[in-house]
Amino acid sequence: MNRRDFTRTVGASAALAVLGGRVAAGEATGATAQGPPPTEATRPSPLAIAMLVHPDMVLLDLVGPQTVFSLLMAKVHLVWKDAEPVPTDVGIMVQPTTTFAECPEQLDVVFVPGGLKGTVAAMEDREVLDFLARRGRSARYVTSVCTGSLLLGAAGLLQGYRATSHWYVRDLLPMMGATMAVDRVVVDRNRLTGGGVTAGIDFGLTLAGALRGEDYARRVQLVIEYDPKPPYGSGTPETAGAAVADEVRRRRAPLLAAAKQAALRVKARLAT
Amino acid sequence: MNRRDFTRTVGASAALAVLGGRVAAGEATGATAQGPPPTEATRPSPLAIAMLVHPDMVLLDLVGPQTVFSLLMAKVHLVWKDAEPVPTDVGIMVQPTTTFAECPEQLDVVFVPGGLKGTVAAMEDREVLDFLARRGRSARYVTSVCTGSLLLGAAGLLQGYRATSHWYVRDLLPMMGATMAVDRVVVDRNRLTGGGVTAGIDFGLTLAGALRGEDYARRVQLVIEYDPKPPYGSGTPETAGAAVADEVRRRRAPLLAAAKQAALRVKARLAT
Repeated sequence: MNRRDFTRTVGASAALAVLGGRVAAGEATGATAQGPPPTEATRPSPLAIAMLVHPDMVLLDLVGPQTVFSLLMAKVHLVWKDAEPVPTDVGIMVQPTTTFAECPEQLDVVFVPGGLKGTVAAMEDREVLDFLARRGRSARYVTSVCTGSLLLGAAGLLQGYRATSHWYVRDLLPMMGATMAVDRVVVDRNRLTGGGVTAGIDFGLTLAGALRGEDYARRVQLVIEYDPKPPYGSGTPETAGAAVADEVRRRRAPLLAAAKQAALRVKARLAT
Repeated sequence: MNRRDFTRTVGASAALAVLGGRVAAGEATGATAQGPPPTEATRPSPLAIAMLVHPDMVLLDLVGPQTVFSLLMAKVHLVWKDAEPVPTDVGIMVQPTTTFAECPEQLDVVFVPGGLKGTVAAMEDREVLDFLARRGRSARYVTSVCTGSLLLGAAGLLQGYRATSHWYVRDLLPMMGATMAVDRVVVDRNRLTGGGVTAGIDFGLTLAGALRGEDYARRVQLVIEYDPKPPYGSGTPETAGAAVADEVRRRRAPLLAAAKQAALRVKARLAT
């Protein structure tokens, strides 16, 4: 089975198998002169996770994964260009805990949340893209949820990778050199990208398995009681039906058009 | 089919049927002297939703539902006893937008998030309980997610009602005069209670159907792309297995013991 079939047909569980293999191989902990590396289960080392926060982000994109990360013995940095609180879709302001200049260089995870309005603005922000490109080059995992993958793409981090995004902008990914994949969580080497908004929980748990092993992640899933029962079968454009999907697109037409224009500019920039 | 079977066996979809009937009957909009009330679809009236915020709450308990509410043409009030920002499990501080004294009296929804540590403290806070009892008496819907139902119970709002909570404290509900139910979202008359943490999304969408009708709620589910694919089958104590569930309980033993003691005190108080 080639990688395309692998990551597409079996989704998250296969992705976990790929990621789990990397953990088992000791890639995560590294060998030391004293002998074989401790296993993740016996001496977990603190993880360094940087989560970008930016104006007009969708707070749930951040808090879903952040809740999982908070249970992983990780140091989570909420990073922005400066120390000013950023507004979010639900009105809660988020205080960055570090800035681009002060954020640790070596990260286990760099993460980007989404939110159509905020993503479109950030995609054209040189400071943001430079930060992501730099940390993305050295991070163990490069990740996003929702429209956040467009920011990763704009930073040049998805060229040659399979990735997904919120359903209504995922067709822009090829403009950034990525291959668009349709799945809840897409894993290609060290790039993990999730679908829209609520996919952050599935994404967080998938990454938790890679970072701390399956037993640990199972426990986390139980702590957050993730046993979903959506009241409607309308969570994707396919299951919701064309009428509903078209209505959603119609109501967001200006922002979707702006996202497309921004993606075209990224395409031109990456091609030069 | 009696109500017990109704709400237990078919879960959220049956709950929606019950709630939908109330909307269709015009209960939601009310008749006016000018003639039949407008339907929800033609002239939606702004909704007034008060979401309690309190120290050490689990932010995801709040933000899951709040994200849905933000798409319902609602005025959402984040209410606490005073205007001081409250700390949460993930470190983000939340600024209340109103206080107990200034919060509107007539609410469509009063909502309580959870978080074991925060709930235990709030359960013994007279000011909080008095506020909830007062608003709960007149609100159209009385709701919670996660351990938040213990706060509703402590305020006397669940006596004679079926309700749920986070799995590791739901057995305390009978001490507050409630009947413990095991389901993702439990609806009994105008009380909607959700399971732990991530159940806030299922809860939010269920309530959205009641407040704005099914078509609207379907659209919201699509906007937040709620098509979950949990990586593990460990979201409940039953599916995770006894070993995992016991480990989770063991690690939280002091707080769980404190919750039980607080619930016993509520029981004694409600009995007098």
